[in-house]
Amino acid sequence: MKKNYNIALVGLGNIGSYLFNFLMKNKNYLSNKNNSNFKIAYISAKSKNKKRNFKIKKKQWINNIRDIVTKKDIDIVIELIGGAEGPAKKLVFNALKNKKHVVTANKALISKYGDQLSKIAERNKVNLEYEAAVCGGVPIIRSIKEGLIANKINRIYGIFNGTSNYVLSSMDKDKTSFQETINKAKNYGYAESNPKSDIDGDDVASKVKILSCLSFNSFLNKNIHVEGISEIDNEDIINADKLGYKIKLLGFSEILNNRLFQRVHPTLVKKTSYIASVNGVLNAVIIDGKPIGKNIIQGEGAGPAATTSALVSDISSILRGNIKYPFAISNDKRKKFKTGKISDLYFSSYIRLNVKDKYGVLSDITKTFSRNKVSIKRVLQSPYKNKKNSSIIIITHSSKDYHIQKTLKTLAKKTYIIKKPKLLRIENG
Amino acid sequence: MKKNYNIALVGLGNIGSYLFNFLMKNKNYLSNKNNSNFKIAYISAKSKNKKRNFKIKKKQWINNIRDIVTKKDIDIVIELIGGAEGPAKKLVFNALKNKKHVVTANKALISKYGDQLSKIAERNKVNLEYEAAVCGGVPIIRSIKEGLIANKINRIYGIFNGTSNYVLSSMDKDKTSFQETINKAKNYGYAESNPKSDIDGDDVASKVKILSCLSFNSFLNKNIHVEGISEIDNEDIINADKLGYKIKLLGFSEILNNRLFQRVHPTLVKKTSYIASVNGVLNAVIIDGKPIGKNIIQGEGAGPAATTSALVSDISSILRGNIKYPFAISNDKRKKFKTGKISDLYFSSYIRLNVKDKYGVLSDITKTFSRNKVSIKRVLQSPYKNKKNSSIIIITHSSKDYHIQKTLKTLAKKTYIIKKPKLLRIENG
Repeated sequence: MKKNYNIALVGLGNIGSYLFNFLMKNKNYLSNKNNSNFKIAYISAKSKNKKRNFKIKKKQWINNIRDIVTKKDIDIVIELIGGAEGPAKKLVFNALKNKKHVVTANKALISKYGDQLSKIAERNKVNLEYEAAVCGGVPIIRSIKEGLIANKINRIYGIFNGTSNYVLSSMDKDKTSFQETINKAKNYGYAESNPKSDIDGDDVASKVKILSCLSFNSFLNKNIHVEGISEIDNEDIINADKLGYKIKLLGFSEILNNRLFQRVHPTLVKKTSYIASVNGVLNAVIIDGKPIGKNIIQGEGAGPAATTSALVSDISSILRGNIKYPFAISNDKRKKFKTGKISDLYFSSYIRLNVKDKYGVLSDITKTFSRNKVSIKRVLQSPYKNKKNSSIIIITHSSKDYHIQKTLKTLAKKTYIIKKPKLLRIENG
Repeated sequence: MKKNYNIALVGLGNIGSYLFNFLMKNKNYLSNKNNSNFKIAYISAKSKNKKRNFKIKKKQWINNIRDIVTKKDIDIVIELIGGAEGPAKKLVFNALKNKKHVVTANKALISKYGDQLSKIAERNKVNLEYEAAVCGGVPIIRSIKEGLIANKINRIYGIFNGTSNYVLSSMDKDKTSFQETINKAKNYGYAESNPKSDIDGDDVASKVKILSCLSFNSFLNKNIHVEGISEIDNEDIINADKLGYKIKLLGFSEILNNRLFQRVHPTLVKKTSYIASVNGVLNAVIIDGKPIGKNIIQGEGAGPAATTSALVSDISSILRGNIKYPFAISNDKRKKFKTGKISDLYFSSYIRLNVKDKYGVLSDITKTFSRNKVSIKRVLQSPYKNKKNSSIIIITHSSKDYHIQKTLKTLAKKTYIIKKPKLLRIENG
């Protein structure tokens, strides 16, 4: 006799609805593949009477989310409410405490409370699965935990947010302004009505924090440098293009001298590099490890279809049995790393200065760089038409970020500087 | 108490030796991650007294491979002998029959006897794991079986052989001849002393057959169209470049109208496409499925390090417990597909004709194409210096392969054709 699992599905937005239909349609197929049966025994969501393209049986519906975790006949809770706090947090904590397996797509929750949740899951011998929380349909979590288990990862980075990647690639392709492009993304459904966390880097930061745990067997670490893309404009895109680069919002996590460095920032990457070719809403993860070398996984990072692919892989993993550690290793074996600051890292950088066209400006700028131990590789000066000022683009040789930031602070005070100097770091890997 | 697994390692070539060292060095780490212990209890290989960079204990060594399968205290047999027949075949069949788990990197064996082996494994409730048999360190098998389990795959293709990809990318980069490049590849260790199966497409064919099973839940199917790269010369590489393409040896498996099409052939791919950017010994697998859309996995396809990464993921999968179906689904649920022929498929094609420089030749050629229902998109005629003949490159519109082949047969008989016409198919996906 095959084992039977009862599922409670909580949250019926785009993703919850897509998942429900998918599970119904593929019930036999998934039961065969995983050698056990499942049933969506219970459903709970905000509104019972909303129009939906499927029927919910009366006995499936649970009005009060709180009643789910105490139901004895539930084996798996799928949380699709979202948000690090409130009902999602309560549901997941209480489900694990009541020895239910949990599947969630909630990156905010996992990146904030993952350590605590993992301890409860381990103690109660249930699974906490969250493949859908990082890069949607890209099976990155399972790959790190299983396919690449042999590897000592030293660096993981990539494009972890589809909305911001869509915006940057569209600005590059269509030469539209940042605001126009955001509006277009909203129209196409590639950006939420409030895309703040996609644009300001916070969404990527959550994913970086989770990937750090899995890659380095560490606990979650809050120390992360985060910059978003809202200050990127067409001029930067065109400058980058002239210099042989594209601009991408990248997340990085790496171990250097036994310290963990986590960072998210718009980055110049060589046009001919693999990462430059990842456009639109695609996500890509690049893993540097031993013995594997470099491994790339690319796919759709968001949307109900890709998210469902990830959720179903999580559900299947539970259906196949075996208790897995949420972060790939038991909590007592996880490490606490000291963190390093971005200012200690070395980058070749793109610096954009808007200056008054005055005699001696360039000479003063280059002097300022040299005084701050930053050596210049390339200068691109273009006067703005009909204006008495110009844009100066400087590409530096690899320099300590601390010195570059100090240079910019000094320059910011100069009377010939019109706008706050802009810094974009270059990734040569 | 953690469960303990006794391993027998058979075969101590480059890969076996690398794996042995890796397992010794990472014993604790892997035991922690998989929550069970293991020991390399037995070792067997051709020569006991060969100089090795590690020590084999007297009680570990087994002189006669045949003694392994009957040892009661062996749980996992790792087969690294290679070859579809002979001792490797005997060992794997008998190990499964004696209820031992098997891990193997043997693509020839799995692509030939995988169905029979899978039945024994399923009956005896042991695992047959072969991640290392396809694309080395690229965790493609585990990804199809687990991370992408939700997806109905309709097409899987890519670069599945590092040696041939190294040869083609080097010819493109350095403009060296085929033979020079092969020699260089041997010097660098990127090609074996006899690289026949890498070059003639057979190695890729084995992988395509295995991937078909996993992607479409089918049995192994012998029907596959295979062409290698030995006839590609610099002229083709240069022509492709002029036309905006690169030449790659690709393997394809797809379901069209409920028929399985398997093929391996050198293929023109757009320079700007992702697959064109995969150079050197890298492998890349592209999966088209629903709901996921397009998923890409890229990494090192061969060598002791990448292979060890895959072997360790297989060993770990056994250490974590649970019996898995070797081909992702029970044998009684696997399907037999009717197969289709390449001649029924439609391609835009690159055709290279070497002709005598005579009046009316081009006109006769174009007439021949049109009579055979193949319409021409582009013609590139270049006379050879100091010779009375020229090369004519024709790019066709998408046409049935049958008609293209018929055209070439007709042309081959013409008196103005100097060399056998050459056909390279174009992949526009």
